[in-house]
Amino acid sequence: MKNHATYECTVNSLKERGVVLTDLAKIVYDMQLKYSPDLTIDECYEHINRVLDKREVQHAILTGINLDKLAEKKLLDEPLQSIIERDEPLYGSDETLALSIVNCYGSIGFTNFGWLDKEKVGIIGQFDSKKDGSVHTFLDDILCAICAAACSRLAHKRVDTEE
Amino acid sequence: MKNHATYECTVNSLKERGVVLTDLAKIVYDMQLKYSPDLTIDECYEHINRVLDKREVQHAILTGINLDKLAEKKLLDEPLQSIIERDEPLYGSDETLALSIVNCYGSIGFTNFGWLDKEKVGIIGQFDSKKDGSVHTFLDDILCAICAAACSRLAHKRVDTEE
Amino acid sequence: MKNHATYECTVNSLKERGVVLTDLAKIVYDMQLKYSPDLTIDECYEHINRVLDKREVQHAILTGINLDKLAEKKLLDEPLQSIIERDEPLYGSDETLALSIVNCYGSIGFTNFGWLDKEKVGIIGQFDSKKDGSVHTFLDDILCAICAAACSRLAHKRVDTEE
Amino acid sequence: MKNHATYECTVNSLKERGVVLTDLAKIVYDMQLKYSPDLTIDECYEHINRVLDKREVQHAILTGINLDKLAEKKLLDEPLQSIIERDEPLYGSDETLALSIVNCYGSIGFTNFGWLDKEKVGIIGQFDSKKDGSVHTFLDDILCAICAAACSRLAHKRVDTEE
Repeated sequence: MKNHATYECTVNSLKERGVVLTDLAKIVYDMQLKYSPDLTIDECYEHINRVLDKREVQHAILTGINLDKLAEKKLLDEPLQSIIERDEPLYGSDETLALSIVNCYGSIGFTNFGWLDKEKVGIIGQFDSKKDGSVHTFLDDILCAICAAACSRLAHKRVDTEE
Repeated sequence: MKNHATYECTVNSLKERGVVLTDLAKIVYDMQLKYSPDLTIDECYEHINRVLDKREVQHAILTGINLDKLAEKKLLDEPLQSIIERDEPLYGSDETLALSIVNCYGSIGFTNFGWLDKEKVGIIGQFDSKKDGSVHTFLDDILCAICAAACSRLAHKRVDTEE
Repeated sequence: MKNHATYECTVNSLKERGVVLTDLAKIVYDMQLKYSPDLTIDECYEHINRVLDKREVQHAILTGINLDKLAEKKLLDEPLQSIIERDEPLYGSDETLALSIVNCYGSIGFTNFGWLDKEKVGIIGQFDSKKDGSVHTFLDDILCAICAAACSRLAHKRVDTEE
Repeated sequence: MKNHATYECTVNSLKERGVVLTDLAKIVYDMQLKYSPDLTIDECYEHINRVLDKREVQHAILTGINLDKLAEKKLLDEPLQSIIERDEPLYGSDETLALSIVNCYGSIGFTNFGWLDKEKVGIIGQFDSKKDGSVHTFLDDILCAICAAACSRLAHKRVDTEE
């Protein structure tokens, strides 16, 4: 682990918000199995972990989760408070921040990011719906980005090993 | 039309490669109908046209189509010739170029771009498969981007009118 | 003005943080005068205003300024609080958010954005230094982005008129 | 070296176009010396090399150099041929492709990319001017991107080691 303290904080922030890393590994597994029939959940989990060990990724996650939490506490100025609270469809800063995670692993990740963001598969779907005052406007895009980045990392590493 | 000559060239390049603009309008219509029940194909067609009237969009389209055509003529240097000819999954410059089209209409378009690029709905699916020596490595991503950009433009304009 | 209420909020947020729009217009004027010898500050001011009238731009500005203000009030969780307070050079999310402003006006804006972000000319320089407890980690990048976007908009419009 | 064959092709393509890698290392050295007073040209050269070992980077370089060479041979369709030949300031796809290199190393690289692209320091300046029929529309942006990426990589690695 390169940035141990920030890595720990990032993983704890995700846990605190209800994210189970093995659920993310399962999404990566389901998406990549057709390309790598010998894939295991453990291998996917390792790629998720390596994505979370990157400074740029940690910063984007911490920033997004902080904004979600501040919106829950009604600490943002209007009109931003209402925009983030309602997950306003034309608000784009959540996608922007999430894409900075995907970018680190090359352009091939955009496709998986967009697909996940629309289909909201697995655990991601839980965070899309806002009920009982919780806000996950940034988190759901961030989870899509972490999974898409892990898919890209896995695809690149697999080809490197073959060559 | 702002850049009339380049607009004409862009539309002609798309036609020459087998792209029918009303087919793209149909994809936009299918994606946006649930948000705008009074939507018409004509309105979608107009948004496609306005996207194609933007200089950044025209340049990305012309560059991508030229690369596809040069790959068909085997005029690229190796290893790029083989990479583009085979539509190598880890080649990312096609997504990169396509995203510069989406970017012009805000971050909300990334989701639709990625979803379209994975699902290859409608006419887009035809250009993904390479048979009989034709190369559409850039074109299929570009078509996803044009549709995603038109969806974003439509969504933004609709809200502007309501306000 | 398309989104009048949000436009007003955005301009007021900038003013509240000490930003004078004519100072931004002056930066655009100084950067573009060599390409357009008949340019006026008024024309630059108009381009700044049209950039600020775009929803994507407004959202990025409001998000960035909110984060700066929350950091001043020490309301962010650690380690994000310290990272933003100190304007940590490896942070990145400030540049990411700012780039979503530049992106709306095409890729030619990246060069001006980067140059302004390094040179910190005019009013931008004032916001880079943090003294007396104020935090402008996001604002200085946002101002670079607004100016770079206005330069791109101006360059595109000038060529459109000539054609 | 991960992708040895493509790495070799990329380095050879750069050499063939007149790029000396130690000249790029010198630019990185000049930009980063103030932050790392014990920096050596050798360390910078190693970072340049590691950037060139990344698949996404190799693909962007090969694509850009191919387009420059095809423009020299007048093999592009109009109006793209004239746009690239003249290095038309509103083109954009050259910056787009170059930014996909910078993106791999996080958002902090945008500033250095933009600054280099405007200042055209060292060897980069040579490739900006087009004389005697040679075209370097993509190459000059690519060189800025390689140097900016190496600066980011160096900055991140230095902090990782300290921590």
